[in-house]
Amino acid sequence: MEFILDFLTRFATQLQSPTLGFLIGGAVLAALGSRLEVPDAIYKFIVFMLLMKIGLKGGMKIREADLGDMLLPALFAVLIGVIIVLLGRYTLAILPKIRTEEGIATAGLFGAVSGSTLAAAMAVMDAEGLTYEAWAPALYPFMDIPALVLAIVMANVYLTKRKGDAGTRVKIWPIVTDSLRGSALSALLLGIALGLLTRPDFVYDSFYEPLFRGLLSVLMLVMGMEAYARVNELRKVAHWYAVYGAVAPLVHGLIAFGLGYIAHVTTGFSPGGVVLLSVLAASSSDISGPPTLRAGIPSANPSAYIGASTALGTPVAIAIGIPLFIGLAQVVFASA
Amino acid sequence: MEFILDFLTRFATQLQSPTLGFLIGGAVLAALGSRLEVPDAIYKFIVFMLLMKIGLKGGMKIREADLGDMLLPALFAVLIGVIIVLLGRYTLAILPKIRTEEGIATAGLFGAVSGSTLAAAMAVMDAEGLTYEAWAPALYPFMDIPALVLAIVMANVYLTKRKGDAGTRVKIWPIVTDSLRGSALSALLLGIALGLLTRPDFVYDSFYEPLFRGLLSVLMLVMGMEAYARVNELRKVAHWYAVYGAVAPLVHGLIAFGLGYIAHVTTGFSPGGVVLLSVLAASSSDISGPPTLRAGIPSANPSAYIGASTALGTPVAIAIGIPLFIGLAQVVFASA
Amino acid sequence: MEFILDFLTRFATQLQSPTLGFLIGGAVLAALGSRLEVPDAIYKFIVFMLLMKIGLKGGMKIREADLGDMLLPALFAVLIGVIIVLLGRYTLAILPKIRTEEGIATAGLFGAVSGSTLAAAMAVMDAEGLTYEAWAPALYPFMDIPALVLAIVMANVYLTKRKGDAGTRVKIWPIVTDSLRGSALSALLLGIALGLLTRPDFVYDSFYEPLFRGLLSVLMLVMGMEAYARVNELRKVAHWYAVYGAVAPLVHGLIAFGLGYIAHVTTGFSPGGVVLLSVLAASSSDISGPPTLRAGIPSANPSAYIGASTALGTPVAIAIGIPLFIGLAQVVFASA
Repeated sequence: MEFILDFLTRFATQLQSPTLGFLIGGAVLAALGSRLEVPDAIYKFIVFMLLMKIGLKGGMKIREADLGDMLLPALFAVLIGVIIVLLGRYTLAILPKIRTEEGIATAGLFGAVSGSTLAAAMAVMDAEGLTYEAWAPALYPFMDIPALVLAIVMANVYLTKRKGDAGTRVKIWPIVTDSLRGSALSALLLGIALGLLTRPDFVYDSFYEPLFRGLLSVLMLVMGMEAYARVNELRKVAHWYAVYGAVAPLVHGLIAFGLGYIAHVTTGFSPGGVVLLSVLAASSSDISGPPTLRAGIPSANPSAYIGASTALGTPVAIAIGIPLFIGLAQVVFASA
Repeated sequence: MEFILDFLTRFATQLQSPTLGFLIGGAVLAALGSRLEVPDAIYKFIVFMLLMKIGLKGGMKIREADLGDMLLPALFAVLIGVIIVLLGRYTLAILPKIRTEEGIATAGLFGAVSGSTLAAAMAVMDAEGLTYEAWAPALYPFMDIPALVLAIVMANVYLTKRKGDAGTRVKIWPIVTDSLRGSALSALLLGIALGLLTRPDFVYDSFYEPLFRGLLSVLMLVMGMEAYARVNELRKVAHWYAVYGAVAPLVHGLIAFGLGYIAHVTTGFSPGGVVLLSVLAASSSDISGPPTLRAGIPSANPSAYIGASTALGTPVAIAIGIPLFIGLAQVVFASA
Repeated sequence: MEFILDFLTRFATQLQSPTLGFLIGGAVLAALGSRLEVPDAIYKFIVFMLLMKIGLKGGMKIREADLGDMLLPALFAVLIGVIIVLLGRYTLAILPKIRTEEGIATAGLFGAVSGSTLAAAMAVMDAEGLTYEAWAPALYPFMDIPALVLAIVMANVYLTKRKGDAGTRVKIWPIVTDSLRGSALSALLLGIALGLLTRPDFVYDSFYEPLFRGLLSVLMLVMGMEAYARVNELRKVAHWYAVYGAVAPLVHGLIAFGLGYIAHVTTGFSPGGVVLLSVLAASSSDISGPPTLRAGIPSANPSAYIGASTALGTPVAIAIGIPLFIGLAQVVFASA
């Protein structure tokens, strides 16, 4: 009981965080028909800046880190990506009025990871003083790529079987490289490489770090506007997508929280790391995932998976998921 | 006499301010045919950043303010917006070679408010140490919306009468909501709401505030280039538009200075507040106003009102108006 | 021998500089087929920001400087621009499979100057603590304009002679003004003018200076991606362009180093100034030069000169030239 009260208080505080405020503000502006727009060039540049910042920091810290500690969380990240897609395949994809390949594509998008949501979680955690391993954001590709690969493979196996062609085989390697070439993952990995191999401390401290929170506030505004704009698309597809978009982020996050807790107990994975793993699981890919899925499962209607993810999945992950997992960590690990 | 000397000295100093320097520099570059351009996406983003900064600051301070103090200045702001349009209607619009609806549209644009000019005034005042009530920038919509609404209503009443249709009525509410949806006012109001309802101090102090002056310098450059580019359009329309564009900002600002002085004496409105009110009156809308007027008075030729405003009104308001009203305040309120 | 060892050590350290890291990172991403892109609007704005920063600083310092000191270096800058074009005309342009007017255009582009390379050199030198005269970056137009003018005049004289028209004369003044109107030179000269005539210290210290290194890192990334993208164009033209693109920057830089050394001995030109002069000579124009040449020598295929410059000349100037000239200066002037 006290747990729930404690959690609700923390949750109410989160609603005053500017990160969430800008997200909601963007949705409200869009709902009121405002003509305010953040140009696409700015949006793309902000995403680049945030992921480069996260990557550089990760790369600089990984130099000092004991990478053995990363093993179990990385394995769990892969496992979570796989679980999310299988869960989506055997729940969402078998519901009425849902075309199976579109259900699988949606599950793939929710298994993949959002750099913006990750950045939002890091900003909130930094403000709360909740620390995590510097390599934790680098768990991103370990969850992202397996989820996209598995979803595309499963959808193609399904489509091939239905057609009765037994001959065609789905090639996995092109899907992996296509994921790695996505703009978000490219920026993150380049940042990690530069953080590892060069000495970017000055440019990090004078540019990428100080601009992080401010650029994130603009990005949240864009994502709020985008979420509202996609609501209409969501209305056009089966209602089960809306249910999935609202519920799945929290279910996925809680599964990750459980696995993260195991890593905490066995190898000392930090509470902040557990929260980040949960946020990665709760997030759905907003930038790199959609084009990869569109290329990999061309017969699936993007309105289904982008609608569920952008209009519901991302706002739920940011506005409910982040405070939920932070609150949970504060209560669970304080009492432990 | 000493007053004039004192004022001229201050005015000469203002010419060395970088705000004005960038404005003039932009016009000179454009006049020399430079190919330098600030991309449109950057321009839009800078306007967003400046108005968000002004809004956030206003919102954070309004929390602590006694809003009763805002009553009289807000009332005066509405009054000034109305006076400017009526003045334009019964002087500009009756001059030879001016189509009445275009004259009214021009008066509406000059009654509406420019966020960039407001930002420029705030930067100059901050550098001069001239303080103002934190809610003073929030007077913006109180002058902007009534001016646009009145101009559109008057133009339509005029056009309807001329056609002899007595039946059509002009709807006011759509004009109000259309103004509120404009990108400049949306950004300002969103900033105020976020400043009031969330705790954006960190993001304000680390991002919006430090970038303000620099982004403003870039915006001034764009406005200088834009002013020169519009001179040709101004040449094509009646010469009275040029006279109006040069004289009206100062007349409007002086009217506002007088009303602001009354508010100073009766309710203690600060000298800096009086200057801001004058600058709001002197400015003409550069971003949100033109599309609203174009939609509201489709038969008016935009070259007339945009030419007069962008090529003359805005440079006059910034380069002459701001130092004039600051100098006036320093002399009037020092002797008071 | 010790000289070479010393130089190699310094060169190895340079490879860890983030400036170079971002350049190489961009090329690697492009080679791997990444979809990461920095929008064109951002790229243009970054170039503007860097040149405005360099100009403002130069302008503010020129106020205090003894301009007599600038005379000899400025004369040498003109001389270097002329030497580079003549050298190109009588080596590159007479090689097999090279159309003479394209060879001259390429020589003109390599004689012209790159603002990005200049900015990169200044960042590396600031990090190394290698100082230079504040007016040294203002040598830019003294080398840039004569090179472009001479190349265009020589190409047109050649083409006219070939056609047998003796009557047509090439007009020099339009080429000069066209160069001055280019976006890079416009931004630099505007910055110098504003630095000289206004008091931009606050806006410089709060905006242009702190963002310099970070924006440069993004620009280097773009230039790395661009270099890789142009490799294909370079493959399509005569192989001598590749040889020229790789060798010319270092030869030009060494010529400038020699002349700079003379200025050091005779008028006390600083070692850092000598390095900047060498970098200006090594660089080839990436922004303003190509459109000027395209307009001035319309029959020359841009693939030839842009390929050689962007794919090879610029990376060689930044990755090899800058550390080479800095290392050379540290060794030469330490022993002097």
